[in-house]
Amino acid sequence: MTSTLLPENTPGAELSLLEDGARYALLQRLTPVLQHQIMGNFQSMDMLAVMMDRRLQSASPDLGNLRQDCTLLGSVSESAIKSVINLLTWVCPKPAATQRFDAGVEECAALLLNDFKLKGFVIANEVPPVAAEFSCRALRSVVSAALFCLSDQATAPATLTLRAQAFPDRIDLTIDLLCTEQEQAKHVYSNGYRLLNWRDLELLAAAESVGLARSDSGAWLSFRLPAEHQKLPAALVASG
Amino acid sequence: MTSTLLPENTPGAELSLLEDGARYALLQRLTPVLQHQIMGNFQSMDMLAVMMDRRLQSASPDLGNLRQDCTLLGSVSESAIKSVINLLTWVCPKPAATQRFDAGVEECAALLLNDFKLKGFVIANEVPPVAAEFSCRALRSVVSAALFCLSDQATAPATLTLRAQAFPDRIDLTIDLLCTEQEQAKHVYSNGYRLLNWRDLELLAAAESVGLARSDSGAWLSFRLPAEHQKLPAALVASG
Repeated sequence: MTSTLLPENTPGAELSLLEDGARYALLQRLTPVLQHQIMGNFQSMDMLAVMMDRRLQSASPDLGNLRQDCTLLGSVSESAIKSVINLLTWVCPKPAATQRFDAGVEECAALLLNDFKLKGFVIANEVPPVAAEFSCRALRSVVSAALFCLSDQATAPATLTLRAQAFPDRIDLTIDLLCTEQEQAKHVYSNGYRLLNWRDLELLAAAESVGLARSDSGAWLSFRLPAEHQKLPAALVASG
Repeated sequence: MTSTLLPENTPGAELSLLEDGARYALLQRLTPVLQHQIMGNFQSMDMLAVMMDRRLQSASPDLGNLRQDCTLLGSVSESAIKSVINLLTWVCPKPAATQRFDAGVEECAALLLNDFKLKGFVIANEVPPVAAEFSCRALRSVVSAALFCLSDQATAPATLTLRAQAFPDRIDLTIDLLCTEQEQAKHVYSNGYRLLNWRDLELLAAAESVGLARSDSGAWLSFRLPAEHQKLPAALVASG
């Protein structure tokens, strides 16, 4: 009943469909983590509503406290909205958005920290301040996919150490994997979705023009600086 | 610098990567619509916080009104949370979730209604009550992709009419396209993301085992009933 799959698309379109496939696989792994991250805001909101309700039960409630709650409510609801909008930028990235290299790496490391801890992995971010702007989409997708891919392929829980080095034309990021508990079998934990493999990482890196190679102990990623932003390394890496 | 793309995966894995690519392309089109849908909840919450704040400015505020606001706040914040969690089921579908055929079609039609209106398209959902359960992911992805694909490929604004017919072993859904303003050039509107083509729709339909063919005026989709749920057509379609 299903019509046959015709290769309607050009090879370029087919490659971009494969890249989008890797983006989808990554997003399936990221969504539970992103959901967990925003839910705290909603819990605070819920607690505030319950607390105000309780105060209002009294015949003569303390208005000062209520006013404070109300101010807090405004700011908690504002951060809930911001967190949802930020989550949606992971789902549907704005192609022109940029962020600092170090901020992008730290964002991914912080996001995955707890999820990785649950499966026995440690993320050690030793990237120094790097004042160079890159595409958010490139940083987020390639760095988070590299962390997922290396941990998915590891045979035992490990520490993943991120380090960066600035060159006039690029920033190199290395992720080194050091198994911490070689005796212990790995606790596979991917929220029911498929693991990320090297092929996914290659597709994502190629889509973002990020250099990628396996290293002895993990992966090497290279983020090329746009010609107009090329500076001396000293200007890029502050002594953190 | 980028390592070459090795065909590491089996053909099956490559096909599933292509399917995920089509899922990603669909999600990029759906996200702005889904975002728009949930933002109403947050606006209500914001308005409530502002109103309560205003009431509390008074030296002796009306406690009855404040108690009502607070009750409303609880329910508005609850629906905001529900709407975010529902949005996330579009981003990261739960494979086992099912819904009624008619409800799934109506969910897609209602979701896209306003977005389509902006580009001059009308969605007319004439699907009668159909009491058969299907996978949410299958209904949502194939029906919404079919609507996007047909409107993206239309040369002029049109009315898209959805009709269904129940058979002992399947439910057929037709989407017929009738151009309403043949003189007027189509207003291309895809939120900056790529249009969906027939190949995407084929990949999504095949991934969900949904039959698909072009018809003279649009598309024909066929949702097979699991053997254990096959009933007489009369039992499936209530006289709506």
